[in-house]
Amino acid sequence: MAGGAVDPRASAPSGPAGQARRPLYRRADLLRLLEPESIAIVGASARAGSFGERTARNLSGFAGRLHLVNPRYERIGDTPCHASIAALSEVPDLVVAATPMEACEAVVRDCVTAGSGALVLYAAGFAETGRPERVALQQRLVAMAREGGVRLLGPNCIGLTDYVRRAEISFVAIPRPAAPPARPALGIVSQSGNLGFALAQAVEAGAQVGRVLTCGNSGDIDVADLVAALGEDPACSAIALLFEGMADPVRLIEAAAIARRNGKPVVVHKLGTGEQGAQAAMSHTGSLAGSNEVYRAAFERAGMVLSESFEGLLELAGFLAKAGPPRAPGVAVVSTSGGAAIMAADRAEAHGVPLPQPAPAAQAVLAARIPEFGSARNPCDVTAQVLNDPGSLRDCMEALLADPAYGALLLPNGFAYDVATPRFRMLDEMAAHHGKAACVVWTSQWLEGPGAREVEATERVALFRSMDRCMAAIAAWQAQARRAGTAGQTSERLAPPGAREEAARLLARATGPVLTEREAKAVLSAYGIPVVREVLAQDAEAATAAAEELGFPVALKVESPALPHKTEAGVIRLNLGDAPAVRDAFEAVMTNARRAAPDGPIHGVLVQPMVPPGVEMVVGARRDPLFGPTVLVGLGGVLVELLRDSAVALAPVGGAEARRMLARLRGARLLSGFRNLPAADLGTLAGIVQRVSELAADHADRIAEIDVNPVICAGARQVAVDALIALSPWEPPPRG
Amino acid sequence: MAGGAVDPRASAPSGPAGQARRPLYRRADLLRLLEPESIAIVGASARAGSFGERTARNLSGFAGRLHLVNPRYERIGDTPCHASIAALSEVPDLVVAATPMEACEAVVRDCVTAGSGALVLYAAGFAETGRPERVALQQRLVAMAREGGVRLLGPNCIGLTDYVRRAEISFVAIPRPAAPPARPALGIVSQSGNLGFALAQAVEAGAQVGRVLTCGNSGDIDVADLVAALGEDPACSAIALLFEGMADPVRLIEAAAIARRNGKPVVVHKLGTGEQGAQAAMSHTGSLAGSNEVYRAAFERAGMVLSESFEGLLELAGFLAKAGPPRAPGVAVVSTSGGAAIMAADRAEAHGVPLPQPAPAAQAVLAARIPEFGSARNPCDVTAQVLNDPGSLRDCMEALLADPAYGALLLPNGFAYDVATPRFRMLDEMAAHHGKAACVVWTSQWLEGPGAREVEATERVALFRSMDRCMAAIAAWQAQARRAGTAGQTSERLAPPGAREEAARLLARATGPVLTEREAKAVLSAYGIPVVREVLAQDAEAATAAAEELGFPVALKVESPALPHKTEAGVIRLNLGDAPAVRDAFEAVMTNARRAAPDGPIHGVLVQPMVPPGVEMVVGARRDPLFGPTVLVGLGGVLVELLRDSAVALAPVGGAEARRMLARLRGARLLSGFRNLPAADLGTLAGIVQRVSELAADHADRIAEIDVNPVICAGARQVAVDALIALSPWEPPPRG
Repeated sequence: MAGGAVDPRASAPSGPAGQARRPLYRRADLLRLLEPESIAIVGASARAGSFGERTARNLSGFAGRLHLVNPRYERIGDTPCHASIAALSEVPDLVVAATPMEACEAVVRDCVTAGSGALVLYAAGFAETGRPERVALQQRLVAMAREGGVRLLGPNCIGLTDYVRRAEISFVAIPRPAAPPARPALGIVSQSGNLGFALAQAVEAGAQVGRVLTCGNSGDIDVADLVAALGEDPACSAIALLFEGMADPVRLIEAAAIARRNGKPVVVHKLGTGEQGAQAAMSHTGSLAGSNEVYRAAFERAGMVLSESFEGLLELAGFLAKAGPPRAPGVAVVSTSGGAAIMAADRAEAHGVPLPQPAPAAQAVLAARIPEFGSARNPCDVTAQVLNDPGSLRDCMEALLADPAYGALLLPNGFAYDVATPRFRMLDEMAAHHGKAACVVWTSQWLEGPGAREVEATERVALFRSMDRCMAAIAAWQAQARRAGTAGQTSERLAPPGAREEAARLLARATGPVLTEREAKAVLSAYGIPVVREVLAQDAEAATAAAEELGFPVALKVESPALPHKTEAGVIRLNLGDAPAVRDAFEAVMTNARRAAPDGPIHGVLVQPMVPPGVEMVVGARRDPLFGPTVLVGLGGVLVELLRDSAVALAPVGGAEARRMLARLRGARLLSGFRNLPAADLGTLAGIVQRVSELAADHADRIAEIDVNPVICAGARQVAVDALIALSPWEPPPRG
Repeated sequence: MAGGAVDPRASAPSGPAGQARRPLYRRADLLRLLEPESIAIVGASARAGSFGERTARNLSGFAGRLHLVNPRYERIGDTPCHASIAALSEVPDLVVAATPMEACEAVVRDCVTAGSGALVLYAAGFAETGRPERVALQQRLVAMAREGGVRLLGPNCIGLTDYVRRAEISFVAIPRPAAPPARPALGIVSQSGNLGFALAQAVEAGAQVGRVLTCGNSGDIDVADLVAALGEDPACSAIALLFEGMADPVRLIEAAAIARRNGKPVVVHKLGTGEQGAQAAMSHTGSLAGSNEVYRAAFERAGMVLSESFEGLLELAGFLAKAGPPRAPGVAVVSTSGGAAIMAADRAEAHGVPLPQPAPAAQAVLAARIPEFGSARNPCDVTAQVLNDPGSLRDCMEALLADPAYGALLLPNGFAYDVATPRFRMLDEMAAHHGKAACVVWTSQWLEGPGAREVEATERVALFRSMDRCMAAIAAWQAQARRAGTAGQTSERLAPPGAREEAARLLARATGPVLTEREAKAVLSAYGIPVVREVLAQDAEAATAAAEELGFPVALKVESPALPHKTEAGVIRLNLGDAPAVRDAFEAVMTNARRAAPDGPIHGVLVQPMVPPGVEMVVGARRDPLFGPTVLVGLGGVLVELLRDSAVALAPVGGAEARRMLARLRGARLLSGFRNLPAADLGTLAGIVQRVSELAADHADRIAEIDVNPVICAGARQVAVDALIALSPWEPPPRG
């Protein structure tokens, strides 16, 4: 599911709101947008500072043919200007409209008529206003363009750039690299035009960026299409995605899978993670920011790597573009600064990045080269003497890069002066030779001092301006590789044969949208999820007999669809140690039940044996409006309810992913045994999570929620003591 | 205690290891180091690239008089060179020795003889090697310098700079600002020379830095001295401290207090926070990195503000230098980028920074100026039209800055082109006029693009390159002001009169280094800490009688100094509901006690009433080897033991600080009531924390540890059910 395979969600014909799901545009569909031979500016202008004039200025280096269209001019400067698209000597591949909102419909029509391939609409005032007539107008334009074979970017779009062919299509001051990228380079995709171009300005400092793509209101083309298209672009090394939200984000999962299949890392930073951020998002191009945890789960399932910060997004993408696959989990740090070494050790520990000591072979080389006042430990103080002696430095770096414990070499750099540049080139060549990653952590606060640009230009060496972000990047790189490693394996389904059909039968018989405890447990049982034994008793005698058979002590719980909140209704009694206690309890709970639900129905009283103590877990599932079925696991009691300590993933999950979910819990140590509580067998527990996920996924059309709480775990003895399944939609079963 | 007052720790005559505590050097003591009229370079050299030559080159702009000393030369270039310090025409205020380790002793002697005021020693090979003879050598040099009135910086020191008088004393390439700072500017203090000068390179990008001070091995002058000296420097606006560790960090608390009294914020970033980081620190200038949480508590007590990252240290110091006191908790965000607005709302929420909506008066102005497709909400989209029209922009910013809900105005800036500069100057002037803070968050990844330098040069506008760090800074600013607000108030002591003496008597009678439960509770009682009632019974009859008097159900616990781990020894029985249960339990626990501690002594069995359920808290104290007594509070059970959810402060604490500790707990919501557990009265609980802190502080000379676990809290009924006090040192009480 992760990595290469396409999530079945993505091939579903409809999106979350039931709307028809448009398939992704692929590179081939967007070629005239991304590789135009000819561009026409509609609304070209002589007026300095106008959108038309700025666009023409930005396109002055364009490798293809540029045409100007505006009936008001016969020429602008030395360039002829034409009255219409139709009047041009050729059909332009791409049209960019620097026209007001009111004129856009005509432009769309003209593009369709002429047979252009792509249209970029700058104008604002469409669906982002929220006004119904503007929403309708946008939909009309999009429909017209689609029917006419014109790929539409925008409206309310700030533009896009291609630094290789100098197709720099925008009305803003375009950040421009000193030279086009020398090799495959980053592609930036952003819903926010302003922030997309803010990122793009990294090229002024030497960052290797090939393209910047923004999509404004995403009326037609959206970020998923752009990710897919870049995913198949040989000139793109990795994709940096700045994302807010979209109506049907499953398409993004599919797009990311395309990129992964083509070996291109996709790094995403999501805006709108908080409540208020989501509110702001609702008024920005109408995006809906979904539940944060589900998004993270979806992104990881898609093989994307998350950037926790905006300012670290390009760094992380640049690193993954250069790093290749991790050869080993360890990192070797070479520094002459004790302070930087402490910082590296700190941050490595914080992110779980191992800094193992060099093996004897490497140790021997280091000890021979490093003066006694240095240190051959890792982090390794080679001393300024060695750092400035290329021969010695080469030997030391070679020894570390050759050591099989290390997948990466990290150099903190505190002085932004060109003296360091030969060192970076040496590192570049050596890291490439060993197929290992190399990072320079720029601790100098002359952030764009000399040397930084040289690092950016290397093939292999990634530049970070934060030790913390560097170590976080290495950790994410390793984690992604582990996920991809298990993703290829088809995880065996755990639910027994016939489970799906059995559950379907049981769900169809539900007498209300929320199943009773007994009904829910029967469904869980069908999937092989261990549930506590129980007997349904109709009177005190039967209850007592059941208790004697099951074994004291027992619990009594009234079974009734009219009593979903049993504790509050007083219809549960626990720890009943003998027959008299059971008889008394039976009367008490039935009295309370009749009071709480006078209209019933009351099916009887469940008699269950008390379960010996163990770690209490919560396992659940929710059908997310955007992403479909998700599964959740958490530590029961205060830990999940108070601290929200839980892990979420898209359902279904396989065994490896279920285990990773357990490892993510902040209270994971509890699972290894705590005080007088026994340990919980992780394999068994992961199996329960997997089975619940299969149930949720199999019946995603009708199960809205599953709550198995608690599952009491002692070693491999794990049993669900309560269960809730809620259906939506629900229809009463046919009579008879 | 916080803010202005000097912590009593600091005036104690000895440091943590019992060594004599050297008082801080103050500015007046270090004047010849910090404001030298004359500087002599010993080991001056003509050899390009030598330390001596590079030092002279760095000092070429020095406003004072420079002398060269090296018997090997009569002149270096056009400058005369002298054979010795004694041969100079004047006594140099400051001597910098570019000499090898072996020659340093003679240099110290010559400085003392000549009557110089300060000496900077570059040479490595001293105490940082760990070798005993080098440690001794360093101590000898330091003693010689101190006796001779020479203030010594180093050894193993990379240098220091003063950008106002161009005293740029170092052998490394000194980062140099384009012009000296125009007004009071940042002072950088760093134990790590390399990282200190890495920070200093910010001046290349326009950061306003006045001084950079590093202290190498801190043989004599250390970071505490430097912070105190800068704290009294009128040219210093705020101090940025990069800190690893020191043998007696209480001096740093005192130094920070001096800075605060002079109105200078001190911002500290601590390296060495992890285990491995601490290991690296042991081999770097021999520092000892202390417990992270205690350091944080100490820093906050000292009124310092913590920077969580290295890369954010100067940003935060720069902000606090410019911001003034917070006038209101809210922040107004003005942006034309929807994406930046979402980011601002996100990060504000993450850091608890309020973004209230403008009041009607401000709303009216905004609505009048902003076109309809903008937004007058906060974050406020004024639109590009207004952003580029100075009159309209001024009106909008004026309306927001005048609104009493806002203490700061924040402008995200996504385009690094000079067009923004007039806007920054307008903001500078207006923010100064209103006495409010102003921040520009530079989202452009052309990090040092045009405009950034202009922001740095303003009086009032702080530059951030991360929205997350900006909001974290605002939150820290607000939190620090709240702490300072309550710090001035002398918190009333809660322990009853005579408590200290009563406890002293009880502690003196302790029959072992760990008090029995009963003994410990008596001490707690003396301080007014509520403890569960109990009776010590010698036989089963007495136990039963006690139980009847106290009320069933009861608990029995064997009282014996030989049984500190009662649960493991099986000498506790809980929930005994009647006399027969008590009798049986008495026999059982005594049997187990005799087995577990055959040599006794066994004083009897404590009979305690079972306490009704409530929130379980842990309150404790530890005497930290560096900082003395600390107090801790946490949520009991899994939350503190598994998740380490606790808050630490230096003891004693007052009521306001105790309440802040409770608010810091991740599980703080539990205190408001959870499921069927009642809320815990915060005032009562804070009072218990305060009393335990007073006990720990009063008897810091002998109490090593206090553990009150659990304190069971239901509303204001809060009672300690168990207690442990460990003494160190401990001596058996005199016989008789």
